[in-house]
Amino acid sequence: MRTDEGAAPATPSYVLVLTCPDGPGIVHAVSGVLAGAGGNITESQQYGDPGTGRFHLRVQVEVPLARDELAALLAPVAERFGMEWSLDVLGRPLRTLVLVSRAGHCLNDLLFRQRSGRLPVDVVGVVGNHRDLEPMAAAAGVPFTHVPVEAGGKEAAEARLLAMVGEHDVELVVLARYMQVLSDDLCRALHGRVINIHHSFLPSFKGARPYAQAHGRGVKLIGATAHYVTADLDEGPIIEQDVHRVDHASTEADMVGIGQDVEAQVLARAVRWHAEHRVLLDGHRTVVFR
Amino acid sequence: MRTDEGAAPATPSYVLVLTCPDGPGIVHAVSGVLAGAGGNITESQQYGDPGTGRFHLRVQVEVPLARDELAALLAPVAERFGMEWSLDVLGRPLRTLVLVSRAGHCLNDLLFRQRSGRLPVDVVGVVGNHRDLEPMAAAAGVPFTHVPVEAGGKEAAEARLLAMVGEHDVELVVLARYMQVLSDDLCRALHGRVINIHHSFLPSFKGARPYAQAHGRGVKLIGATAHYVTADLDEGPIIEQDVHRVDHASTEADMVGIGQDVEAQVLARAVRWHAEHRVLLDGHRTVVFR
Amino acid sequence: MRTDEGAAPATPSYVLVLTCPDGPGIVHAVSGVLAGAGGNITESQQYGDPGTGRFHLRVQVEVPLARDELAALLAPVAERFGMEWSLDVLGRPLRTLVLVSRAGHCLNDLLFRQRSGRLPVDVVGVVGNHRDLEPMAAAAGVPFTHVPVEAGGKEAAEARLLAMVGEHDVELVVLARYMQVLSDDLCRALHGRVINIHHSFLPSFKGARPYAQAHGRGVKLIGATAHYVTADLDEGPIIEQDVHRVDHASTEADMVGIGQDVEAQVLARAVRWHAEHRVLLDGHRTVVFR
Amino acid sequence: MRTDEGAAPATPSYVLVLTCPDGPGIVHAVSGVLAGAGGNITESQQYGDPGTGRFHLRVQVEVPLARDELAALLAPVAERFGMEWSLDVLGRPLRTLVLVSRAGHCLNDLLFRQRSGRLPVDVVGVVGNHRDLEPMAAAAGVPFTHVPVEAGGKEAAEARLLAMVGEHDVELVVLARYMQVLSDDLCRALHGRVINIHHSFLPSFKGARPYAQAHGRGVKLIGATAHYVTADLDEGPIIEQDVHRVDHASTEADMVGIGQDVEAQVLARAVRWHAEHRVLLDGHRTVVFR
Repeated sequence: MRTDEGAAPATPSYVLVLTCPDGPGIVHAVSGVLAGAGGNITESQQYGDPGTGRFHLRVQVEVPLARDELAALLAPVAERFGMEWSLDVLGRPLRTLVLVSRAGHCLNDLLFRQRSGRLPVDVVGVVGNHRDLEPMAAAAGVPFTHVPVEAGGKEAAEARLLAMVGEHDVELVVLARYMQVLSDDLCRALHGRVINIHHSFLPSFKGARPYAQAHGRGVKLIGATAHYVTADLDEGPIIEQDVHRVDHASTEADMVGIGQDVEAQVLARAVRWHAEHRVLLDGHRTVVFR
Repeated sequence: MRTDEGAAPATPSYVLVLTCPDGPGIVHAVSGVLAGAGGNITESQQYGDPGTGRFHLRVQVEVPLARDELAALLAPVAERFGMEWSLDVLGRPLRTLVLVSRAGHCLNDLLFRQRSGRLPVDVVGVVGNHRDLEPMAAAAGVPFTHVPVEAGGKEAAEARLLAMVGEHDVELVVLARYMQVLSDDLCRALHGRVINIHHSFLPSFKGARPYAQAHGRGVKLIGATAHYVTADLDEGPIIEQDVHRVDHASTEADMVGIGQDVEAQVLARAVRWHAEHRVLLDGHRTVVFR
Repeated sequence: MRTDEGAAPATPSYVLVLTCPDGPGIVHAVSGVLAGAGGNITESQQYGDPGTGRFHLRVQVEVPLARDELAALLAPVAERFGMEWSLDVLGRPLRTLVLVSRAGHCLNDLLFRQRSGRLPVDVVGVVGNHRDLEPMAAAAGVPFTHVPVEAGGKEAAEARLLAMVGEHDVELVVLARYMQVLSDDLCRALHGRVINIHHSFLPSFKGARPYAQAHGRGVKLIGATAHYVTADLDEGPIIEQDVHRVDHASTEADMVGIGQDVEAQVLARAVRWHAEHRVLLDGHRTVVFR
Repeated sequence: MRTDEGAAPATPSYVLVLTCPDGPGIVHAVSGVLAGAGGNITESQQYGDPGTGRFHLRVQVEVPLARDELAALLAPVAERFGMEWSLDVLGRPLRTLVLVSRAGHCLNDLLFRQRSGRLPVDVVGVVGNHRDLEPMAAAAGVPFTHVPVEAGGKEAAEARLLAMVGEHDVELVVLARYMQVLSDDLCRALHGRVINIHHSFLPSFKGARPYAQAHGRGVKLIGATAHYVTADLDEGPIIEQDVHRVDHASTEADMVGIGQDVEAQVLARAVRWHAEHRVLLDGHRTVVFR
């Protein structure tokens, strides 16, 4: 949106996110550091959760300093308030690994948005436990790796995944209809860095063929939920949810199709917000600074 | 929408609804009777459910006959195809009893719509197990009856309800946030004539204080479901559902308020469709001819 | 949500809103005053509009000072940055006058929400240019004033309205389907204090009977817009909008009914956000800190 | 959804759609032909428009006859009632030509749905007045033709389009963000066979850069409309519309991105309904039998 015509370099922009126990003086201290560094805050959102007692802040700021210089100025304040924090260059794409099985609706949507410049991620690879989506990855110029999960071979498959995460310095793993359950160990190793998408119904249905159950029960809404994957919970902190309307004439196949649309849209929003550092963990909840 | 200026009486309009085993010739037979009677079909919807094998039809028709004359013509066809059917004067208000406890958002909404001519029901009475909503009923000119449900006194209370249903020839009972569970016997006695409304979440929450649980879990949608009350099911056939968006900053009280809005709207739609004979039972599902 | 059991008085809570030219140091200066006064910020939102160059801030804060003491501390900062600002006791109901004509759907909704504690307004009176809604106001215990607008008598009618605004120290005027156009003079006199609601369609329709036009055109969505009333613009800054789905079988009367539902809901949200000091003017736009 | 395991051929399924002046006996006559031919109606919807006086019917039916045999049986009834009608094999993909310019969000969505079996169209070609989307078409294995529209060369370009329509016997032309206005002659030649998608706002904005205007005006909803292209109207009969929510912090670029999502979804629904013969013209309106 900005045009820098002359030779003068643009002031760098950063995004600072932090979480700490709530209390007086936090914003004043942080804004003091930024003002002292000649910073200009362009966007800022905060939320103190009375339930968890945690304070959350996200700031976009233009500062005429290198990232590490600014980080060094912020470190004492972070220390004083016991902050978990991160400082990133605004708009830097996150190195992302996408895991898939056979269904391509989420992968197609993510790759198109990434290529259109609407999703700040750098997809370093697509991993499939089946080969079905290899052509789709190839058409987008993204390396595809086939990591089958044989009976008894989950441990080996996850070791390969972790190796790829390490090798490519992966910051985000997206389960784009990856039909394998991650082990508790892998969940813990990648805590806060794995986003999953699944269908959601009112009421919820246990067991096999949930769309058949939803159809048999005559639900009027088909939904999807994007969430972080955790080991401890049946389902981790929710990032985004949405629904679409169906009616009695919707077949089970119609419902599956509508469910796929909702899944692709909800997952895309969750990935974008995460990649823009807009999602903060707050106990079992998320704070989403949209 | 139509103005009949002269002396000629308007042709009466009826709504015919029927359900029977699916098979060839049903529409042809019914339309034959209606055409033979000089009828003009103004609205018609049908649905054959491949899952249950049931066929459903709703027809609005102008016929220059009295209701009973038309019914007599239809009876042989109904007999032949094994139909469950009903024939009513189009727009006739259903005699309706509304049951409430303390929360008035649904009752206020129903009464306002009824008075505005947007809900074809005749509210013959409001029954509360508490007295809180007596003034609201009084302001609308509707009789209020206090039927408390003491410990051990549910049987007596339900006997009073059934007596009122009989006395006023009640066709529809609306549980407008009535916080008592109906006994299986009462459910069976009023099968297909009782509509309930409750909140719905993704995921669903068991146990006390569901809004507190939903808040603690960080859900992004608050919903409501209107359904028929049945004895056999945890929850009967769904008539309508909807959701509204919340976020991390929504307090539990905000969520309760939003939930109340959704409940009132979903219940109003379900009651209107039922009163217009647009909802047909199809096994555990409903067919809603909107 | 909080119970203060002992004798200790609760710390008072305030809401501060301000708008000023954007620039460095604003948040730091304001948070400095609040921290120095022993304040605890419980909610804060800010937005700098790159288009208008205006900075907007809303802060909820607990401070152990009287309102005027805190205002005195803030005044020098406000002066320094050229702020338009206000400081109010959190949750104080706004003195509100509601103007109506014949349709009661918005008035009924507002009055019910106010009585249910979900709308922080004190409705000091209802003014109608017709008498139709006098009983509805009476049932809610709100004084009703009949101010007819005769041909050639708009000036006199508006003088009575302004007198009532002065007499009751009215802070907010809600046009709840008031079918009279306010004069430019009245718009200017009440700038930023009058909220209107109207239907909205895609595409929009000029001229009489917009629902008939929308029906004839086969629109699939019926919407409503709540906005501030201004003299200069055809339509003032938008506060909130929403839509509801219709289809080919929806009659013009159905569309009117659905339009009324959307209008009532959109107006209620706009009034609540305004009364909670969540809506700030930003040129021809609004900033809404929900 | 059905598996025919043995040697017996499945009974063919057809979709019959018809429009004619409303009057008694239509359904009875049509259902008589179908019943006489041993047909089993699996889905049927009808609508008589009191405004236009037109009756509309869509029937899915299994009949043990070839298409032309069934058509011959229906022809006398069609003649008698003055019907515009069509009879097609259920699920037959429509031969479709997609016209594009530079933006690929709609084309990507359509091609993915088609390949996933969720859009019953056979995309015989993509035509672009720019070459930007040639690789996207190539990746999907669809022929791409570059038909530039030079200044003064619209006539020649449209002649090429019409030639392609003739050569491939094209049944549907989709303007998937094709940024050229079709001439009146072309509109007439392809009447009822061209679907366009455009953004929609409340209020609407004339002139250049509508997203900039919408942003400057602070709209809270971004929408899209899919419609048939006609010569006579500024905008033809609407097939589908939808909106998505934005707020004050949404940049113009955010709004463009959200608008693209809505456009792709609305266009996909319109194309699917058209290809399934669910959309009937009714004067300036459409009847959509979803």
